[in-house]
Amino acid sequence: MAAPAPPRTVLRVAAISGSLRRASANTGLIRAAAEICRESIPGLHIDHVDISELPLLNTDLEVNGRFPPAVEAFRDKVSSADCFLFASPEYNYSISGPLKNALDWGSRPPNCWADRAAAMLSASGGSGGSRSQYHIRQVGVFLDIHFINKPEVFTKAHLPPKKFDADGDLIDSETKEQVRRMLLSLQAFALRLQGKSEQGN
Amino acid sequence: MAAPAPPRTVLRVAAISGSLRRASANTGLIRAAAEICRESIPGLHIDHVDISELPLLNTDLEVNGRFPPAVEAFRDKVSSADCFLFASPEYNYSISGPLKNALDWGSRPPNCWADRAAAMLSASGGSGGSRSQYHIRQVGVFLDIHFINKPEVFTKAHLPPKKFDADGDLIDSETKEQVRRMLLSLQAFALRLQGKSEQGN
Amino acid sequence: MAAPAPPRTVLRVAAISGSLRRASANTGLIRAAAEICRESIPGLHIDHVDISELPLLNTDLEVNGRFPPAVEAFRDKVSSADCFLFASPEYNYSISGPLKNALDWGSRPPNCWADRAAAMLSASGGSGGSRSQYHIRQVGVFLDIHFINKPEVFTKAHLPPKKFDADGDLIDSETKEQVRRMLLSLQAFALRLQGKSEQGN
Amino acid sequence: MAAPAPPRTVLRVAAISGSLRRASANTGLIRAAAEICRESIPGLHIDHVDISELPLLNTDLEVNGRFPPAVEAFRDKVSSADCFLFASPEYNYSISGPLKNALDWGSRPPNCWADRAAAMLSASGGSGGSRSQYHIRQVGVFLDIHFINKPEVFTKAHLPPKKFDADGDLIDSETKEQVRRMLLSLQAFALRLQGKSEQGN
Repeated sequence: MAAPAPPRTVLRVAAISGSLRRASANTGLIRAAAEICRESIPGLHIDHVDISELPLLNTDLEVNGRFPPAVEAFRDKVSSADCFLFASPEYNYSISGPLKNALDWGSRPPNCWADRAAAMLSASGGSGGSRSQYHIRQVGVFLDIHFINKPEVFTKAHLPPKKFDADGDLIDSETKEQVRRMLLSLQAFALRLQGKSEQGN
Repeated sequence: MAAPAPPRTVLRVAAISGSLRRASANTGLIRAAAEICRESIPGLHIDHVDISELPLLNTDLEVNGRFPPAVEAFRDKVSSADCFLFASPEYNYSISGPLKNALDWGSRPPNCWADRAAAMLSASGGSGGSRSQYHIRQVGVFLDIHFINKPEVFTKAHLPPKKFDADGDLIDSETKEQVRRMLLSLQAFALRLQGKSEQGN
Repeated sequence: MAAPAPPRTVLRVAAISGSLRRASANTGLIRAAAEICRESIPGLHIDHVDISELPLLNTDLEVNGRFPPAVEAFRDKVSSADCFLFASPEYNYSISGPLKNALDWGSRPPNCWADRAAAMLSASGGSGGSRSQYHIRQVGVFLDIHFINKPEVFTKAHLPPKKFDADGDLIDSETKEQVRRMLLSLQAFALRLQGKSEQGN
Repeated sequence: MAAPAPPRTVLRVAAISGSLRRASANTGLIRAAAEICRESIPGLHIDHVDISELPLLNTDLEVNGRFPPAVEAFRDKVSSADCFLFASPEYNYSISGPLKNALDWGSRPPNCWADRAAAMLSASGGSGGSRSQYHIRQVGVFLDIHFINKPEVFTKAHLPPKKFDADGDLIDSETKEQVRRMLLSLQAFALRLQGKSEQGN
């Protein structure tokens, strides 16, 4: 298949992993997504935004309209992105604490997430993380994030074939293809919302 | 306020009430929405789609690729709509049975709901029906419905001021204004998804 | 394994399938549960409660404090049960319409479900029906149903090995063992709530 | 009303606030609950468990089967409690990040939450926090927490009458009575699960 002609718009995707483990499969999914964009999706660029240095949310830390430095830096990255990619482990049938904490810091007024397209990936146990994704979608209603509906990616990390190596790098070609299709869907939806899709021009 | 210039596109909205009661407040919200469109929202036209004659979902009723007549008629109306408006009572912290039944009939292959914008209203008790709306949003992920995020309309039917008369007709001007803002948001989002918004043209 | 000594209490379980198809795998799970109880769980007896004749919920059908005959019969069966077993297909990421309709009829005042233990099974596609189960649990909060937490049974009907025959009868021994463990957990929790468990005596 | 005779069992409740703000209304609800227990609920004792010093969850911090000191201390308090009380603000239509983080640390094997009764309070904006509570209930399924169904307490912090003073102390007598009824329900359910209720003896 020939690569598509580059679109006129380059979309920057702020990508966030909900797991802080060094060898996290979810963070591995983000690295894989970044590589897939570089190699085969012109017009989509992934920036991995680290959330490990954010303090636990406490609005007492907001002083004179300023956030702690780590929060300010995080919010700047969110605000300047065109769309979002979340890689969310499922912790106890819901979103991870660190990811929820990041979403909440970004939501403090002015809400940094508003009116952008987003997609989600999850690597997890039996359900592939689906339970966490629907909680994140509900959060997205208030944050005014427009999630793509399809495809959904639920990576069953513990089922064969082996999908991640010991460093959390994605090594399964079928999952890579799922990620690629999701990224194309995110790109199309983001452009559509911006009025820059083929339909819109 | 001067009426806006009519847009080039007229969007047809299939509107469904999850309550079958004659004097339902939710059905009243749909009547109010239809009137608001006629009076002040050029380009948006509401068709109330009745669901009371649908049989309980049972795929054994599909014979030779045909649905029962009431289902065929319902599916035709859904398929031909440009977007959707759901008025959902909250029954036991979730969607009403009749509305879920209708959503399910419409989803039988080929899925009649796909890739359309939608909005929700609810008139209910203490929560204003919010719990039902998030369940419907989750259903919408599989149906590939694109719900607007804002504004959400939760009409607390039992709190003063009195909002509905004995026939279920909406008599509260503040709620009418909320409905109007929701309809404008639905129209804008539907046009944006169709690549026909100001941004896209 | 020797059968346990029969407990002093016989619990009657009202079991409801959310699918009305003749060859439904979910209804098959209920038949399997009934057989497992007869064969190896003294003190637990399953009554399959049919919901296919219930009208779509419409409170206008309640006249002089009476429900339509099919609803009265259904409510009597629910009211007289000691606990509940739901076999719920996942339709469009939520509870089936017919099951929601039945739950709603049973909830009309006086609520027939209150303060009883319950368990859930689901046979469905990729997720095994988990999305529907969490919606039913939320409904159960308002209905005042006490669901067991573990084990959860998610039967992935379309994955090998073949679990159901053409009539929807459960033929997979591993799934049968999961159902048996769930029923034992339901029995223990119901007795505990009634103050009749070993702990309580 | 005469105080009830003291039960034979004293239940220790680990109470956790999902908000870290100094003047949090949710933390105020916990202080109010503790005072209500001291004054009028013999047999129920509330210990406020602080979660502000927990690190963001990262399983790389678990070394040789040991958790960081703040996590060990937290887990000890959870493990030794008889039941739980969560005061959860609603952040972006879900659980707060700090509370989810605490729930997750407590769930690391061996799960510290298992098989205990729990109740929830929330002080929040328009919905009174209901959206967060249903997410917490879903988390509780995996954690094997048994939540009471009723009464639910949703404190609409921003609606009149004024319910909290500038320090977050609860000053509204109606809300205090709601909290008291919830605590009595928690106590009764916890005793019932332990086989120590009137019914069970």
